[in-house]
Amino acid sequence: MNELLQRLEALERRVNELEDTLAIQQLIASYGPAVDGLDSPALAEMWADDGTYDFGIGEPLRGREAVAGLIDLDSHRTYIAAGCAHVLSTPRITIDGDTAVAINYSQVFVKGENGWHADRTGANRWELVRTPEGWKVSSRSNRLLDGTEAARGLLRSR
Amino acid sequence: MNELLQRLEALERRVNELEDTLAIQQLIASYGPAVDGLDSPALAEMWADDGTYDFGIGEPLRGREAVAGLIDLDSHRTYIAAGCAHVLSTPRITIDGDTAVAINYSQVFVKGENGWHADRTGANRWELVRTPEGWKVSSRSNRLLDGTEAARGLLRSR
Amino acid sequence: MNELLQRLEALERRVNELEDTLAIQQLIASYGPAVDGLDSPALAEMWADDGTYDFGIGEPLRGREAVAGLIDLDSHRTYIAAGCAHVLSTPRITIDGDTAVAINYSQVFVKGENGWHADRTGANRWELVRTPEGWKVSSRSNRLLDGTEAARGLLRSR
Repeated sequence: MNELLQRLEALERRVNELEDTLAIQQLIASYGPAVDGLDSPALAEMWADDGTYDFGIGEPLRGREAVAGLIDLDSHRTYIAAGCAHVLSTPRITIDGDTAVAINYSQVFVKGENGWHADRTGANRWELVRTPEGWKVSSRSNRLLDGTEAARGLLRSR
Repeated sequence: MNELLQRLEALERRVNELEDTLAIQQLIASYGPAVDGLDSPALAEMWADDGTYDFGIGEPLRGREAVAGLIDLDSHRTYIAAGCAHVLSTPRITIDGDTAVAINYSQVFVKGENGWHADRTGANRWELVRTPEGWKVSSRSNRLLDGTEAARGLLRSR
Repeated sequence: MNELLQRLEALERRVNELEDTLAIQQLIASYGPAVDGLDSPALAEMWADDGTYDFGIGEPLRGREAVAGLIDLDSHRTYIAAGCAHVLSTPRITIDGDTAVAINYSQVFVKGENGWHADRTGANRWELVRTPEGWKVSSRSNRLLDGTEAARGLLRSR
């Protein structure tokens, strides 16, 4: 009986980790539809209350409401009017208890005369935190892959 | 003993849901290789018998044989001759019993003089159904992200 | 008791398979960050000791050190200097005991005057093997989707 319980508990821990990995995948897969669907509430919900988003232009955005405000920026409205897709790649995820790090690519494709071109292509380091409402973004750092070291460093980070 | 059984059953339910999520991911990851590999049987197998595919041009295709017929369209043969890749992003998946909804992006990259360009970039809403042969597509709606509301609405849908 | 044990063992087998699928997803999601982050050790670690990489130009690379040497090729250094992203799609995975096959797309986006363009777009067949250090690549075949049959055949393979 005791051995059975131990095996069950070992399996529960493994299922916890699988659920964590898929939950973080799903969280990150929600970003594009939120920004391209002009869905501010969905975008705010992705971030922790005091989460940040640093995309290398000006000061990092601080707090989920500031992040959700991205949708109203002139630059975003210009993308939306032309037709745009924020496409994110499947992240490489490392979980450590109640925090995690995910590394992936993000691209912004914008419609032009000859189909859609990648107006931005960047590296991302997502720091995530387990909360009572599920995994949330505590910080996202994004840097353009433009030949400078900043983005390459994000890709190497753990 | 009874408590052990209850814990085991709870774990079984969680594993069921993990399997469902990965099965749907895998189903959607099969689309590109089927159409770009000219593999009609693999394409037909993805859809439920009476499943539909609505890509915003003419009437939706109805039934798995009609969907598999995509591979023989002149437009598809032109893509194939030039060299093409139907690249789909990791979907955001919501499971509700024996049905599910998945939201993602799809792009068609076509070879030209200067590499491959995205000739189509669209939003997708996949409705899926559990069948005795596994998860199948009951309907797929695809709209180009060209600045109109149709595609944005798909991205917001649940 | 016996029935409980059997149900537990059945569940363990299902969790094994879920872990295998996610481990292979994560392995493949590590490729882009390794090559674009100039992280030779991370790249070497992905391959089995005697693993190969055949990208259709010259002889296949043989052994993890040869694969890691990709990072020092002139062609790769030119990509890196311009700014590049090796973006890989979510693979379709088939596991068979201690080996597996994964099929996906890979693209190399390179920065130019008007954003990033896809300089390469290819089909991949990854053969994977379970080792004491986890899943590793035993062979990767990559062919450009340029209208020839070679890449389409990879996409149809199991």
